[in-house]
Amino acid sequence: MSEKPFRLAVRAVILNERGQCLLLRRSHVCKGFVGTWEWPGGKADAGEAFDVAVRREVVEETGLQIELTGVAGAFHVEMPQQHLAVLCMEARLSGGELRLSEEHDQSAWAPLPELLQWDLTGGFRQFAEAYVQRTAGRA
Amino acid sequence: MSEKPFRLAVRAVILNERGQCLLLRRSHVCKGFVGTWEWPGGKADAGEAFDVAVRREVVEETGLQIELTGVAGAFHVEMPQQHLAVLCMEARLSGGELRLSEEHDQSAWAPLPELLQWDLTGGFRQFAEAYVQRTAGRA
Repeated sequence: MSEKPFRLAVRAVILNERGQCLLLRRSHVCKGFVGTWEWPGGKADAGEAFDVAVRREVVEETGLQIELTGVAGAFHVEMPQQHLAVLCMEARLSGGELRLSEEHDQSAWAPLPELLQWDLTGGFRQFAEAYVQRTAGRA
Repeated sequence: MSEKPFRLAVRAVILNERGQCLLLRRSHVCKGFVGTWEWPGGKADAGEAFDVAVRREVVEETGLQIELTGVAGAFHVEMPQQHLAVLCMEARLSGGELRLSEEHDQSAWAPLPELLQWDLTGGFRQFAEAYVQRTAGRA
C-alpha cells in the first residue's frame, strides 16, 4: 500500500436553498462505475490549488459557477496505480446554467437526508453515510 | 464568508503499532491556542502537493519521516483573513528521531480512544469526536 502515490481529488457538495445537493450520473464514457451517482469534481492538476481545481471541475462538468462555503470532509479511494484523497467542499451556486459534459448523462437535486437512496459511486457511499448523519441536525 | 479565500492545511495522524497517535503541544511562540494539543502539520505552500506538504511539515515539527497510509478526514477552520480546509492523513513512521521545533514544547503518544481527554486545539476537537467514533471498531 505504501508504494502507490497519493493524489488529491476534489468534489463539490453544491447545496441549494432547499437543502438539496447536485448529483450527476456517470455516463458510458467513464472508465468505471457507469450509471452510479456522484458529486461533481475530479483530480486536481499538479500544482493546482484545491479551490481552483474544484471550481474548474464544476464548470467543466456542469457549466455552473460556485462559491465555496465550507468543508464536508474527506475520504480515501484506493485505485490500481494510486491512492486518492478526496476532499469534499460545500458550495453554493453563484452563476451559470446547468449543462452536462459527456462524462455524465443525468443530473438530479437530492435532499441530503435522501442521499443514501441513490446508487452512489464506490467509495463515496461510506462517506455519504457519515455526512448525512452529521448534517441531519441542520435546518 | 464567501469573500475570504480557502487555503489547504494538512495534518498527520501518525499511528504506532499500539494504536497511539502523536500529539504535540503548542508552545508560547504560537500565535494562538498556546498549550493546546494537535497533530503535526500546517499549511501547504502555493503549488505544493498535499502529500509533499504533510511530509515536510512533519519533518519540520518532529524530525520524523512518515509514509501516508490513508485519509482520516477533513475539517473547516474559519480564521480572520481566510478559511482553512484541514485535510488529515493517516500515516506510519518510516524513520527519524523525535525532536520538536520551537512551535511545540511537549509531545505524547495518545491512544485514539483517549484523544478527547486531551485539551485539543480549537476546530480539531469536533473532528476528533467523529474520528474517534469512526475508528472505535479498529483493532
